[in-house]
Amino acid sequence: MTVELVCVGTELLLGNIVNTNAAYLAEQCAALGLSCYYQSVVGDNAERLKGTLDVAVGRSDIVILSGGLGPTTDDLTKETAAEAMGMPLAMDAHSLARIEHFFKTRNLEMTENNKKQALVPSGALVLDNDNGTAPGLILEKDNKRLILLPGPPNELVPMFEKSVKPYLEALEPGIIYSKTVKICGIGESKAASMIQDLIDGQTNPTVAPYAKTGEVHLRVTARAADEKQAKQLVKPLVKELKNRFGAAIYTTDEDVTLEKAVVDLLLANDLTVSTIESCTGGMLAARLINIPGVSEVFKYGYITYSNKAKRKVVGVKKSSLHKYGAVSAQVASEMATGPAMISKADVNVSITGIAGPDGGSAEKPVGLVYIGCCVKGKTTVKEYHFMGNRAKIRESSVSAALTLMRQCILEYFSEVTFGKQD
Amino acid sequence: MTVELVCVGTELLLGNIVNTNAAYLAEQCAALGLSCYYQSVVGDNAERLKGTLDVAVGRSDIVILSGGLGPTTDDLTKETAAEAMGMPLAMDAHSLARIEHFFKTRNLEMTENNKKQALVPSGALVLDNDNGTAPGLILEKDNKRLILLPGPPNELVPMFEKSVKPYLEALEPGIIYSKTVKICGIGESKAASMIQDLIDGQTNPTVAPYAKTGEVHLRVTARAADEKQAKQLVKPLVKELKNRFGAAIYTTDEDVTLEKAVVDLLLANDLTVSTIESCTGGMLAARLINIPGVSEVFKYGYITYSNKAKRKVVGVKKSSLHKYGAVSAQVASEMATGPAMISKADVNVSITGIAGPDGGSAEKPVGLVYIGCCVKGKTTVKEYHFMGNRAKIRESSVSAALTLMRQCILEYFSEVTFGKQD
Repeated sequence: MTVELVCVGTELLLGNIVNTNAAYLAEQCAALGLSCYYQSVVGDNAERLKGTLDVAVGRSDIVILSGGLGPTTDDLTKETAAEAMGMPLAMDAHSLARIEHFFKTRNLEMTENNKKQALVPSGALVLDNDNGTAPGLILEKDNKRLILLPGPPNELVPMFEKSVKPYLEALEPGIIYSKTVKICGIGESKAASMIQDLIDGQTNPTVAPYAKTGEVHLRVTARAADEKQAKQLVKPLVKELKNRFGAAIYTTDEDVTLEKAVVDLLLANDLTVSTIESCTGGMLAARLINIPGVSEVFKYGYITYSNKAKRKVVGVKKSSLHKYGAVSAQVASEMATGPAMISKADVNVSITGIAGPDGGSAEKPVGLVYIGCCVKGKTTVKEYHFMGNRAKIRESSVSAALTLMRQCILEYFSEVTFGKQD
Repeated sequence: MTVELVCVGTELLLGNIVNTNAAYLAEQCAALGLSCYYQSVVGDNAERLKGTLDVAVGRSDIVILSGGLGPTTDDLTKETAAEAMGMPLAMDAHSLARIEHFFKTRNLEMTENNKKQALVPSGALVLDNDNGTAPGLILEKDNKRLILLPGPPNELVPMFEKSVKPYLEALEPGIIYSKTVKICGIGESKAASMIQDLIDGQTNPTVAPYAKTGEVHLRVTARAADEKQAKQLVKPLVKELKNRFGAAIYTTDEDVTLEKAVVDLLLANDLTVSTIESCTGGMLAARLINIPGVSEVFKYGYITYSNKAKRKVVGVKKSSLHKYGAVSAQVASEMATGPAMISKADVNVSITGIAGPDGGSAEKPVGLVYIGCCVKGKTTVKEYHFMGNRAKIRESSVSAALTLMRQCILEYFSEVTFGKQD
């Protein structure tokens, strides 16, 4: 079955709010095995809403509309949907009683326009709204289904969970199951070219690459009658990806981020960590501290943006700063081994680079970054050349530092070796 | 002129990512005076993309497409747009050279599929991508315009700012002029209620509030024949807002962020700054170091997530940690005055709080944060209660710290006094 989303609201068209309802509904529908090929946003305008709705009903089995169910004259979704389905509006006693109760229990005066919210297309299923006044509605006719939901996420989400999800589950037995293989240290193009043969001519399961800063996620998706069968379809393809990408895969768990994988690795090997950052100015530490429970491993974080701070706080040699410059492999190495740090950790990671827009030269251009990683005395320093503006260079540096930490720890504790950084 | 947005990407249809591009583009187009009546999302599928594009071109003057410009066979936007406009693809030497340069400077191998990104519809305007490999494109024909932008927001946003905005501005003779009055330390509801009378019945100019984390931006917009006239319309309304919000306004400059305003204030008063962070783990330092030129003022940054680090690195008393707890006004104060810091700065800012999800109690719930600010020996500590998840609480803490720094510096050096934090 196909489903389509139509989100109604001028505030979406003006960009005043981000359409989180669409992402939520799309994710829910995908998990239910419904194929969603289109999403639209349209304003509170009768003609354009009717045009959009007619197209949606013409090409999809189910249309989920959100927004435009409120009490004001602007709110037209219900009227338009009722007309499109030929189901005239009538006062619904149950909904009216609920709305009156809503106002009474809050000691609020119920204005006349609120009664409008109890008007319901004849024959429609009414979905009670536990968090507001506008009820949701399901209109069925000729194998087409319109589902009308209120716009505020704190009303839409609970109503979907409670009433719409069970309704949709009952419509079709099949499900969609996805597994994400997350890779670091390999670029998107290279990752895509490594699986081109798998992508060509794929049907079920499918694999698709998604680029993130410093990472690529490969999503494997299968459709089947039940979860067990879907998992069986996904399994061999995930295994094949593991063969091809090996140690570059840092997780296949949806909830695990790169920083979480690194923190887990530190915890598993009973290692503490300290960070010494120049151009990233605390972003690496901030990402590690995203992870609840990092207090077990995070020792100290130093932001040594100036040469003086590099000397005084971690003990970089004045002569090294003079001879090699602050952005150099030598200084990155001295930052990571930090003789002057109050106390060193098992893993010390340093970042020094030129994030721009100023400070670059022909010899040392903007985007040049050195990252050092010292694991129990064994120090690795790598040179990177990142593109983009200041923000992008700093983000890329942090992702590269996490990737290097992971590689250095794995190389120290196991037989795994990583080649040249991609 | 009318504009329509078409966002391309299976990950949007599956709800894997939230469509922030649509909100950004919609807001930009509205600010440019373009009327946007429709937004659509469609997957990486040639037939459905073509259908959506045909409808969009039929009803709107300008169609902005985002996504699907990458190197993989999934990426079809350019091919589909070229076909729709009857402009066959040809290799663009300039774009190819840029892509080759991109890979060469990063010491990366350029795979064959990357060349695909240098194919350009004949006669199209090419928009250089400073943050990635896929160039943007503008296709013009028969008074219809297609604008193709890369999907990643860190490529799309800078490209829109640099190339698309000036292009759109030049299309229509009348202009839209906006000025943004940026406020910190006052919540959205309060700010909105303070200007309700200005919003009611407004036509030209208009004022609209936009909530950001810890900030409210009031955008004043006027439409006129030329910039001079538009500026004259905007001026009295901006003056009125200055009367009402006074010192809570940190800038009326579009390019000035809160961290930039704070760095400028430090520079203007010849003050150095150090940061001492617990739950934010470097995010405050990272935001200050967003600003090029911060090296003039940024002295040291310390991340003291553990109690041990608080004691050893900055010299918080063991007895204070024991008696008041790590999240307390006393510890925030000791962190900001830091007797053990290698060298204190003129301004020392500390943050300690409970970001969750664990670690909260009835007495000290998740979201409780103390921020200390010591300006030349005069210390202020404030208590905050933030809502939301770990990420939101940490972001709110950083914005509040910047606001408090600004207030403390202004109070120290001038007659300005700020009341209770809103």
